[in-house]
Amino acid sequence: MEIKVVRDILAANEMLARENRETFDKHGIFVVDLMSSPGAGKTSLLVRTLEQLTPRYPCAVVEGDITGDVDARRIAEVGVPSVQINTGGACHLDARMVKAALSSLSLDDIRVLFIENVGNLVCPANYRLGEDIRVTILSTPEGDDKLTKYPLAFRESDVLVINKTDLVEGIDFDIEQARQSALTVNAQLQIFQTSCRTGEGVDRWTDWLASQIESGRET
Amino acid sequence: MEIKVVRDILAANEMLARENRETFDKHGIFVVDLMSSPGAGKTSLLVRTLEQLTPRYPCAVVEGDITGDVDARRIAEVGVPSVQINTGGACHLDARMVKAALSSLSLDDIRVLFIENVGNLVCPANYRLGEDIRVTILSTPEGDDKLTKYPLAFRESDVLVINKTDLVEGIDFDIEQARQSALTVNAQLQIFQTSCRTGEGVDRWTDWLASQIESGRET
Repeated sequence: MEIKVVRDILAANEMLARENRETFDKHGIFVVDLMSSPGAGKTSLLVRTLEQLTPRYPCAVVEGDITGDVDARRIAEVGVPSVQINTGGACHLDARMVKAALSSLSLDDIRVLFIENVGNLVCPANYRLGEDIRVTILSTPEGDDKLTKYPLAFRESDVLVINKTDLVEGIDFDIEQARQSALTVNAQLQIFQTSCRTGEGVDRWTDWLASQIESGRET
Repeated sequence: MEIKVVRDILAANEMLARENRETFDKHGIFVVDLMSSPGAGKTSLLVRTLEQLTPRYPCAVVEGDITGDVDARRIAEVGVPSVQINTGGACHLDARMVKAALSSLSLDDIRVLFIENVGNLVCPANYRLGEDIRVTILSTPEGDDKLTKYPLAFRESDVLVINKTDLVEGIDFDIEQARQSALTVNAQLQIFQTSCRTGEGVDRWTDWLASQIESGRET
């Protein structure tokens, strides 16, 4: 019974994700879903990315959090429109929540929409939101074994960003090992290495992202 | 409908958690549930704790992972019996999984059982397993704002371990701020600070844990 219910929920989510996709296509919006464990650097990467992209593209952000609006306030400081979703306990965003949030945004004025998911390396991967690309961030202090211990998020993503590379000295994180593990889990992954603290590596990621926006939907 | 189903699942879990509790009481086993985000240091804290406790108490470990047995192998190296639960995708342990795992352990020979939950700061907090105490680990690279952004795990825990204190220099983590936030979320929290890398602070935590084991169930 439980399995049947879960399937129904996922099927209903897929339908709403397709509706979101149609909305995004109609308005010519490129959509990026950002996933990671709590504290891996989703908001930091987002702030760095917005600093580079906003001169070229009108951007907006949907912030997903269980409670509070700390992240939305950080985004507001960059001068980018944002909508806060509070899931009220739920461990992931779903397409219905995103659909509801879209009514608060001026869709005709947006070229790129970032959706920052709830910090959780497990559950969000099951719920498509209508995005063009999915990005999962792994921070070096989490350890390079997380790629094989929590494979679904990486398998369901287009991009892996290895963040906090400035902390890699003196901790047990082997970047080459991580890249190999990631490609074993998902051979199609685009992999970037960033330090959102120093800014190192952010250019390469935003250049690639801009190329994806220019070429339309990721295939 | 979805809410009703979730309530049924939680109610069924509570019932099984009580059955586990009865089993633990019957065998005089003190049970610790360890929760955290992926990579916060559950297994590292467990290894450090076992090194200190096993000379005094026969210990065993139930390892919860979505897939694989990396952590159980680390525990085996310490010479402590362990059982691996693979949730097969599920984002948390539940009482039924733990109940099934108990059949693989020699309960009469165990005084302290550690249950390492799936790495997830959100979902495990909803599922009691029959434990005496719940410990949530927050690692400094995750950021001190996680206490207020993901309050449930801290609210439902008896202990907060702030881990990776050796990394606190040069990152945005204010330990005093974290302690204040934690106590605002849950005034009853016992708070410890550890570096499982250097071993700093582990004694204070294990001394306290031993006192809890001696005094029986945490009240």
